[in-house]
Amino acid sequence: MSTPPPRRAPAGAAVLREDVTEAIRAAVFEELAAVGFARMSIEGIARRAGVGKTAVYRRWKSKLSLVLDLVGAVAEQGMPAPATGSLHDDVRALLEVAAQALRHPVASRVVPDLLVEAARNPEIADALRAALLDGRQGVVARIVHEAVARGELPEGSDPARALDLVLGPLYWRLAVVRTELPEGYVDGLARAAVAALRAV
Amino acid sequence: MSTPPPRRAPAGAAVLREDVTEAIRAAVFEELAAVGFARMSIEGIARRAGVGKTAVYRRWKSKLSLVLDLVGAVAEQGMPAPATGSLHDDVRALLEVAAQALRHPVASRVVPDLLVEAARNPEIADALRAALLDGRQGVVARIVHEAVARGELPEGSDPARALDLVLGPLYWRLAVVRTELPEGYVDGLARAAVAALRAV
Repeated sequence: MSTPPPRRAPAGAAVLREDVTEAIRAAVFEELAAVGFARMSIEGIARRAGVGKTAVYRRWKSKLSLVLDLVGAVAEQGMPAPATGSLHDDVRALLEVAAQALRHPVASRVVPDLLVEAARNPEIADALRAALLDGRQGVVARIVHEAVARGELPEGSDPARALDLVLGPLYWRLAVVRTELPEGYVDGLARAAVAALRAV
Repeated sequence: MSTPPPRRAPAGAAVLREDVTEAIRAAVFEELAAVGFARMSIEGIARRAGVGKTAVYRRWKSKLSLVLDLVGAVAEQGMPAPATGSLHDDVRALLEVAAQALRHPVASRVVPDLLVEAARNPEIADALRAALLDGRQGVVARIVHEAVARGELPEGSDPARALDLVLGPLYWRLAVVRTELPEGYVDGLARAAVAALRAV
């Protein structure tokens, strides 16, 4: 007995549904960058995605759940852990990846915006912490652990403090000061971070 | 010939006007912290200040001009420049002041919020840059200049990079990671920053 095809589901409907989902996700990033979380509306997202409001509500119950879903997806992508065999080169590789991520035009607008919402909304705070920090904390903890094993850093070096020293200056420069990085900036930052890590 | 008092301006009216201005300013900070710039309204500010909307509009033409005015007032207060005679102690003093400012519950909500608006509004960006950066850049430039004169830092040390290395880790920790500072954290950060500054 063969199952008859369900009514109102033409061939290719599954593909179409995925296309719509992707179009909505892309529209959310664009809306977040353009108007911010506070001003963003499901109407605006639907308009930008070229779909009806119901197409959005069928998938997510609110703009909060939509944003949490997107942030979660970024978190899952993780972050490659450099393992160059030297503390300086590991730190340099990490800073290169972080500088690219922070300079991404969408990320540079969306993340600060969500940090603001996080101060008022614990659900956003948790999702953002998972997306932004957990992965990087894990990578830096491994870099520190291996540097201690090689004798490049003293026993008991604190990975949380290491994350502050490595990523803090770059974040401040790119997200707060917002001026172009001069030639060789990341190189100098890697040397400075290693010196800072060693000065316990 | 003595000037008659203007009509409808009883004795103490000037004081009263100043009180109203101060009440509105305080209400703006509270509204910014509670709901953020995007959701803030003149109605909400007036309600919180216990005044009519016209009292606000008589003083400022929009919520943007109100916020720019407040940010400008903070900028004028400036920042004391430490001059302890040692690079480490100057950096430590600067970090203490910055840590207090960043932990202030209103500042920790208002500044990130305005940074988000700054990404979309050049007027806010300029006012915020003046308020947050110009003063601190000047202080750090002086600290670096004096350390170079004493031979504690090499000639040609870049004050902009110094600002990133000194304030970046603290800002990241208090504004992004948002966890309590462990005992002795600022001391360790001062040592780390001096080591970073020397590693050019």
